[in-house]
Amino acid sequence: MPPVDRELDPSPRLLLGPGPSLVAPRVLRALAAPMVGHLDPEFIVILSDIQALLRTAFQTENRLTLALSGTGTSAMEAALANLVEPGEPVLACVHGFFGDRLAEIARRVGGDVQRLEVPWGQTFEVEAIGRALRDRPARIVTLVHAETSTGARQPEIAAIAEACHRQGGLLILDCVTSLGGLPVEIDAWQVDIAYSASQKCLSAPPGMAPITVSPRAEEKIRSRKSPLPTFYLDLTLLARYWSDAPAYHHTAPISLAYALREALRLVSEEGLAARFERHQKNARRLWQGLEDIDLPLLVPEAVRLPSLSTPKLAPGIDDAAVRRRLLNDYNIEIAGGFGPLAGAIWRIGLMGHSSRPENVTTLLGALREILR
Amino acid sequence: MPPVDRELDPSPRLLLGPGPSLVAPRVLRALAAPMVGHLDPEFIVILSDIQALLRTAFQTENRLTLALSGTGTSAMEAALANLVEPGEPVLACVHGFFGDRLAEIARRVGGDVQRLEVPWGQTFEVEAIGRALRDRPARIVTLVHAETSTGARQPEIAAIAEACHRQGGLLILDCVTSLGGLPVEIDAWQVDIAYSASQKCLSAPPGMAPITVSPRAEEKIRSRKSPLPTFYLDLTLLARYWSDAPAYHHTAPISLAYALREALRLVSEEGLAARFERHQKNARRLWQGLEDIDLPLLVPEAVRLPSLSTPKLAPGIDDAAVRRRLLNDYNIEIAGGFGPLAGAIWRIGLMGHSSRPENVTTLLGALREILR
Repeated sequence: MPPVDRELDPSPRLLLGPGPSLVAPRVLRALAAPMVGHLDPEFIVILSDIQALLRTAFQTENRLTLALSGTGTSAMEAALANLVEPGEPVLACVHGFFGDRLAEIARRVGGDVQRLEVPWGQTFEVEAIGRALRDRPARIVTLVHAETSTGARQPEIAAIAEACHRQGGLLILDCVTSLGGLPVEIDAWQVDIAYSASQKCLSAPPGMAPITVSPRAEEKIRSRKSPLPTFYLDLTLLARYWSDAPAYHHTAPISLAYALREALRLVSEEGLAARFERHQKNARRLWQGLEDIDLPLLVPEAVRLPSLSTPKLAPGIDDAAVRRRLLNDYNIEIAGGFGPLAGAIWRIGLMGHSSRPENVTTLLGALREILR
Repeated sequence: MPPVDRELDPSPRLLLGPGPSLVAPRVLRALAAPMVGHLDPEFIVILSDIQALLRTAFQTENRLTLALSGTGTSAMEAALANLVEPGEPVLACVHGFFGDRLAEIARRVGGDVQRLEVPWGQTFEVEAIGRALRDRPARIVTLVHAETSTGARQPEIAAIAEACHRQGGLLILDCVTSLGGLPVEIDAWQVDIAYSASQKCLSAPPGMAPITVSPRAEEKIRSRKSPLPTFYLDLTLLARYWSDAPAYHHTAPISLAYALREALRLVSEEGLAARFERHQKNARRLWQGLEDIDLPLLVPEAVRLPSLSTPKLAPGIDDAAVRRRLLNDYNIEIAGGFGPLAGAIWRIGLMGHSSRPENVTTLLGALREILR
């Protein structure tokens, strides 16, 4: 039987795509530590450590802050499934693939979804969102802070949150590609639910999804009239598991929790300010290098993500062929564009442990050789 | 900041509870292998290996066989959310905690749920299920093969599946504590959806959930009229990701997939028959030892799980105190009872890599010392 005979022997990839990013040796070691049970007193302390470290990363004091046993998409679904009741008006701000996915999941959980769109790669003006909300008030507004499909960083989150709250709504913010790589200030911005993923700027393995819920959002969840369509992602039950006296809900992915804790310790040891500066510095180095080889960036620098850069392909470049050569001849992973940007851009991640000057040098060197 | 200073240093627990079970060294090593991307051609081969190995474990040829990026509870929810349409009659057979959970999730996804119950620890007669279905036909029947809360193995699954099909229904079977530890014959039994979890008799870390879907169940999902309430657990989209030409759906937990593949290779190398015999033999050894120290088993031997044994506590035994001593003085984890069986039984797992004669000896020795 073929799969049995083949030993696991993954190639040593340099992960410079939109995630997963490289995992630091300390985190890989934590991953392979012997397991304790998911209700072991020692494990409860680990969960509590993760909560404390996540509050620092999210810059929040939200009580309900934890990591879901799923990927970023599970957190997106948890936010919407808990917050939206069937028939409630939702304003979905769509400026890329993940904004679109939020709109789709909001529809599936029963929301009455209105879409506000700008072309992929652009960002929203506060006034445009304010106007949409005056035209049709919404109980929930969904927005992507860092669009992994375009490389754009949505600015002015605080002003947008204020516009939501002014008309009685709550703001869900997707921070999948920002948490741990650029400023995410949940309390200062007054965001109601924010979530992320373990394998991006936090550089843990994929499979857990940090989420934080404001007291205001907790109150809306508490006062639901209709039953939640999900049990696995029921935040009220999860909060009871992530507590000093844990009530069984599901078996947490123990090894991933070890790894996430270690990755968050690395974030905390480096310090948020230094970490953001490192991401910015290595990204600037990459941008300069890309422009030098005639690969200008899609997104204006003022709203450009340091964690994910999206150079436009010059005419004549064979997108798939170049990426295949990068992978096969250089062991470097980058990604292509999605949807309207397919074939038009590359997506290059410098996230967490992947954000290092030597990786920028390696990638630019390989691109110069291939494109010469 | 306290959590930052404490190094990860879990105690060397002997995991003899209801899961997670001990993880073999080869599987821990696979877990810590360097990561490739989730769309890397090398990773697609790994997913395909997992599918092939899972088909062997489930004894099925079902095309739609994969592992969800979540725990056993996510698979329970996936089965129900995909199969049940709002208002459809569901018969939930409840003989323990997890049967009850299936009923609760069926309700949340909109099913019109009727419960058929026997006391915890007992199993169902085929005729009782047949009668319930004649009284009120059901489109979906839920049943737990191996009740982790009681230690009972539900027999005669093939006859129960036939009773379901005869009146136009489909059978969902929970195999969380059976897959890889005792016979699970999905095709021979004609089960429509079966699922399990990575951390029980397969002895991989928790965080992935094998699931297999019969062509008949696929057809019911394809002909749904109402939208699925979940995106994360949408089996149709997941099947497109688990394919030769994968369409992005979410970022699979790469490290856990490495580990699950390695754990399944161990199952395949040992062979199902030998593996089941090992589980049975070590369980018999445990049962004899428990009876010798006046801890008779709750479940009659004919329907007793080899993977999870549930001795009844003699009067005067302080449940929590004994388990605390086992954990603190001997580093052994076993679990207490749930619900109506709280304080009345222990739950002792001999699953996968934990099912070894020396572990039986160690546990019995520790119990003799504590209870003397």
